[in-house]
Amino acid sequence: MRTVFVNGEYCLENAARVSVFDRGFLFSDGVYEVTSVIEGRLVDNPRHLQRLHRSLEALAMPCPMPDADIHAMQEQLVARNSLQEGLVYLQVTRGAADRDFVYPQQVKPSVVAFTQAKSILQNPKAETGLRVISVPDIRWQRRDIKTIGLLAPSMAKQQAILAGVDDAWMVDEAGLITEGSSNNCYILTADDIILTRPLSRDILHGITRRALLQVAAELNLEVTERAFSVAEAQRAKEAFISSAATFCLPVTQVDGRQIGDGKPGPVYRRLRDAYIEFARESIRG
Amino acid sequence: MRTVFVNGEYCLENAARVSVFDRGFLFSDGVYEVTSVIEGRLVDNPRHLQRLHRSLEALAMPCPMPDADIHAMQEQLVARNSLQEGLVYLQVTRGAADRDFVYPQQVKPSVVAFTQAKSILQNPKAETGLRVISVPDIRWQRRDIKTIGLLAPSMAKQQAILAGVDDAWMVDEAGLITEGSSNNCYILTADDIILTRPLSRDILHGITRRALLQVAAELNLEVTERAFSVAEAQRAKEAFISSAATFCLPVTQVDGRQIGDGKPGPVYRRLRDAYIEFARESIRG
Repeated sequence: MRTVFVNGEYCLENAARVSVFDRGFLFSDGVYEVTSVIEGRLVDNPRHLQRLHRSLEALAMPCPMPDADIHAMQEQLVARNSLQEGLVYLQVTRGAADRDFVYPQQVKPSVVAFTQAKSILQNPKAETGLRVISVPDIRWQRRDIKTIGLLAPSMAKQQAILAGVDDAWMVDEAGLITEGSSNNCYILTADDIILTRPLSRDILHGITRRALLQVAAELNLEVTERAFSVAEAQRAKEAFISSAATFCLPVTQVDGRQIGDGKPGPVYRRLRDAYIEFARESIRG
Repeated sequence: MRTVFVNGEYCLENAARVSVFDRGFLFSDGVYEVTSVIEGRLVDNPRHLQRLHRSLEALAMPCPMPDADIHAMQEQLVARNSLQEGLVYLQVTRGAADRDFVYPQQVKPSVVAFTQAKSILQNPKAETGLRVISVPDIRWQRRDIKTIGLLAPSMAKQQAILAGVDDAWMVDEAGLITEGSSNNCYILTADDIILTRPLSRDILHGITRRALLQVAAELNLEVTERAFSVAEAQRAKEAFISSAATFCLPVTQVDGRQIGDGKPGPVYRRLRDAYIEFARESIRG
């Protein structure tokens, strides 16, 4: 049984509880971060904590612990759970208060964190690829804030699973892909240009996306940040995603249409390998 | 201290807790209802339970208790808390499961309910009126499902409070008002026609709205269900809102502009009185 962190205490997962008056439970008034773990170490965590602050500020929510304490707690969780590979999930909510749409004053934010074991480096999907369907993006207009209001992407992912595929790519009203249910999306055009949607309030500002664009530049791969359509994705030479939980994975089918030769492509492979190298350097840093 | 209902148990509010793995806490994967209470009795509750089922079905979530048991539990809460006037809040979430965007299988939904004391019949705002500002409606596209993903309206309400007014009216991309932060909106035109936005996925299908339109018809008031703009609201003879928590309240200012003579109008008064009569009949029924 896992050890979980809840408001300053380490407890067993079946004892990990929060008040029913927590605004995370009543208003989805909270934000989160997912940091990957390889070789028992946190990957690129300072940037995750930086984004946590950005999310908290957008909601006028104070940060309840100094970064160093959060980082130490995340490391404690990894150690106590003997986690070699997987994720540390961290959630901060505005805290418990009598239910009111108005933000409560002088309430103590809640901090919850837990680990999830997961094969990241040896993920079988890295070799077989993901099949995705497109679905309308029905989310709110502040997708750049990493809030726990995740029902729409959860519905999208569920729809994908019911359709017998791996994930859903969400499409805006202009017919352009925003994101996967919990990942950023990329295609490689016929001209060998990597396309990915530019940062805005329409998408999450992925920490793995940021590092992936950095390694792409180091590999002298050409990247253009512009939105692309489902039809463009279907005509692409390659397609792939990035997220902390998966690093980078190939997409081999979009809405039933095979991408390229239906196999993970060479540009994806170079990027995944280079990102893994980046992650290994990050944990040594 | 209040007695609260959590998953089959009645407990004191400071002991009312749910798992941190509850999908209400991690994904805002849950729905809710607010039923008003006057004279210690639930108002119009069968329709609230009917809408609860509609919300649950939209999320493919099973209902964890028969309606009769939910109703009996709500009455128990009212009795145990000696609630004469106020609200019973009821929330159903998909339940606790290891974190995954895919819906978990065979998980038991969580049911939480609590009371809030509140003056509904003698609300001072019924005489003074509400001042509102307009804000962009940034919510998701399924506002007809009464989910706990309430961060956007909570932000809107907070913005209103910081602006020194009572509430925010949310405005869609066409410049038309959708809803208040937790209420449906109405205006009375120069031609004495009550306008309110028609039901769609853009707004919550208010139970109090439904009853208010019923009493408006009984009073031979003319109602047209069409969306209206901020400018139309500012030119209106009267403006008002409805919700379970407030019944019906006048709006006397929109974006700094006085509505009519700045005082609660006669049509609002007739509607509020008639709704109170409807509520009294409902609790006798």
